[in-house]
Amino acid sequence: MASPYKIAIVVGSLRKEAFSLKIGKALQKLAPDALKLDLLTLESLSFFNQDLEANPPADWLKLRDTLKASDGAIFVTPEYNRSIPGVLKNAIDIASRPYGQSSLNGLAIGIIGNSPGAQGGVSAVKHLQTILPGISGPILQQPEMYLGMIGEAFDDKGELTKDSVKQFLLKYLDAYATWVALHKG
Amino acid sequence: MASPYKIAIVVGSLRKEAFSLKIGKALQKLAPDALKLDLLTLESLSFFNQDLEANPPADWLKLRDTLKASDGAIFVTPEYNRSIPGVLKNAIDIASRPYGQSSLNGLAIGIIGNSPGAQGGVSAVKHLQTILPGISGPILQQPEMYLGMIGEAFDDKGELTKDSVKQFLLKYLDAYATWVALHKG
Amino acid sequence: MASPYKIAIVVGSLRKEAFSLKIGKALQKLAPDALKLDLLTLESLSFFNQDLEANPPADWLKLRDTLKASDGAIFVTPEYNRSIPGVLKNAIDIASRPYGQSSLNGLAIGIIGNSPGAQGGVSAVKHLQTILPGISGPILQQPEMYLGMIGEAFDDKGELTKDSVKQFLLKYLDAYATWVALHKG
Amino acid sequence: MASPYKIAIVVGSLRKEAFSLKIGKALQKLAPDALKLDLLTLESLSFFNQDLEANPPADWLKLRDTLKASDGAIFVTPEYNRSIPGVLKNAIDIASRPYGQSSLNGLAIGIIGNSPGAQGGVSAVKHLQTILPGISGPILQQPEMYLGMIGEAFDDKGELTKDSVKQFLLKYLDAYATWVALHKG
Repeated sequence: MASPYKIAIVVGSLRKEAFSLKIGKALQKLAPDALKLDLLTLESLSFFNQDLEANPPADWLKLRDTLKASDGAIFVTPEYNRSIPGVLKNAIDIASRPYGQSSLNGLAIGIIGNSPGAQGGVSAVKHLQTILPGISGPILQQPEMYLGMIGEAFDDKGELTKDSVKQFLLKYLDAYATWVALHKG
Repeated sequence: MASPYKIAIVVGSLRKEAFSLKIGKALQKLAPDALKLDLLTLESLSFFNQDLEANPPADWLKLRDTLKASDGAIFVTPEYNRSIPGVLKNAIDIASRPYGQSSLNGLAIGIIGNSPGAQGGVSAVKHLQTILPGISGPILQQPEMYLGMIGEAFDDKGELTKDSVKQFLLKYLDAYATWVALHKG
Repeated sequence: MASPYKIAIVVGSLRKEAFSLKIGKALQKLAPDALKLDLLTLESLSFFNQDLEANPPADWLKLRDTLKASDGAIFVTPEYNRSIPGVLKNAIDIASRPYGQSSLNGLAIGIIGNSPGAQGGVSAVKHLQTILPGISGPILQQPEMYLGMIGEAFDDKGELTKDSVKQFLLKYLDAYATWVALHKG
Repeated sequence: MASPYKIAIVVGSLRKEAFSLKIGKALQKLAPDALKLDLLTLESLSFFNQDLEANPPADWLKLRDTLKASDGAIFVTPEYNRSIPGVLKNAIDIASRPYGQSSLNGLAIGIIGNSPGAQGGVSAVKHLQTILPGISGPILQQPEMYLGMIGEAFDDKGELTKDSVKQFLLKYLDAYATWVALHKG
């Protein structure tokens, strides 16, 4: 049997109880055998500063190495002020450098927006769809994933209990697995 | 004579020789008496994390207090990966909180994009125009400011030497001063 | 008593029973005395084509004249494919010309998104916020208007019956009237 | 030898001497044998109106049939007011319907922006990247195509004479041919 594809789940929020983190963990549980999903959280990352590029901090190198060793990345993100969190944009800025050598190039990309409210993080997803094309591998487009009212989907222990969301994630993982196989196969 | 309006120049890049910083300094030199421009750089800011909101770090409070004590803010920003730098988005995320109490509300807002290449940071400006409306005072719309080929505008000492850019900045400051007076007058 | 401000309600959809049209009519009923709201529907408009600019069709001139004779314009729009309808973008393209002489310049601008689903047309509003700044007067930013589940707001006769939506529209009209007075005063 | 892939070049402007049309014709001349490029211009299209959906006009059906019979579509578009022309958005609205049956689904998508000025239509391309994902097949992301100063690229007879643009188009066609082959097998 072939090795599973190595996929980084990039979690867009630093909050310990972040819904994006819970979705990431739910994805891990639901993933098919063909995918090995690893959580990539951003709490140890420093700010991008071009002055440091000649001698980049260890945390930048670690992020880049993790992505380069992956077959794909799924961004799971909340929406802050009609865009992605600064924390996530900073990680993307670091990953994208040095110029022309983005660590996201070649990776099969997934995007899952979520919000406690009704819009499901659509404005964060839309910004990602304009940010990534020049610095990443191909973005899976469908099914579109805007998980609204996400607070209702998990129980007190952080377990995904809402069946409709579970079905969305399964359907997404299925499409994503096909996408990875097409581009990395 | 009336006191000048207090305006924060928010510099979107951490680089010491950032063009955005040089533009900020040029704006200071060119500003009319009605405007007092202070540079607001972001190097001492930490990452936004909702877990810290109950007891926010001193650097968050300082940013918020500086903005609240201002009549306006002009964002001078490069474009990173077709959007604003993560560093700047993070500052905006911090400024926007707590929910409903954004420190940018009520301020007269200006936006100046720039880039070493031809596009002048237009994609960064466009993202800001969708990020700010719900959390800031009114954004000056014209003249549009996309300063391309910005590397040619400054000499070795960081002085603005390109006359066309100087004229753009003067025209912008004139429109911005009118904008501030209209909204804060 | 002063004459009321003359405001064009630009309706983004051609459908006879369009929710955007119903919202426009509801705004007319709810408007304060300071505002005179006229519906501007787009069914008689032709496509923009630069070859016709030297000798523009009568429908273009009528649109431009109507806008120029107005103090403001409120765009009420559905979302088609994560943006504004082509019909509305075409009207804006016509209004924006000739270059540098946009009929929307100087007008106080409002934007109200709506959708039968949960997102309230937010992606249409976000695109408008990037389309208009260079060719229109100042855009009112708050309150943000994303009217979701709009189908539940009207009865069979097209009357606005949902009280929360009525309250949103009243609050919006109040802010808009202040905005017009500030800029056209 | 296998039949070439059938690709529609969707031209975003109605102008007879449109640069987008000239780029389309240049693409036809430069295309490899694996691609058969047909120009799809929009001058005979009517406006989308949901009231007509039960009995759609012939021009809508023709557009949809043409796209459905294609393996891919390359959008070549100018930028009007920081977005795509209304003419092009209207065509996309028509192609996207009926709901869930978009004629663009399954097609390998390319996007080429252009402008007489320096920005190369980047804001039009960025809007397309947020409009299409839910209603089209996979969008080729790299190389990014923002053809600025496009007026200098063609001679009086509309022939592409600027070698750097020719090289960009050749490189793009090469990447696009690989993209089509990957997705249409």
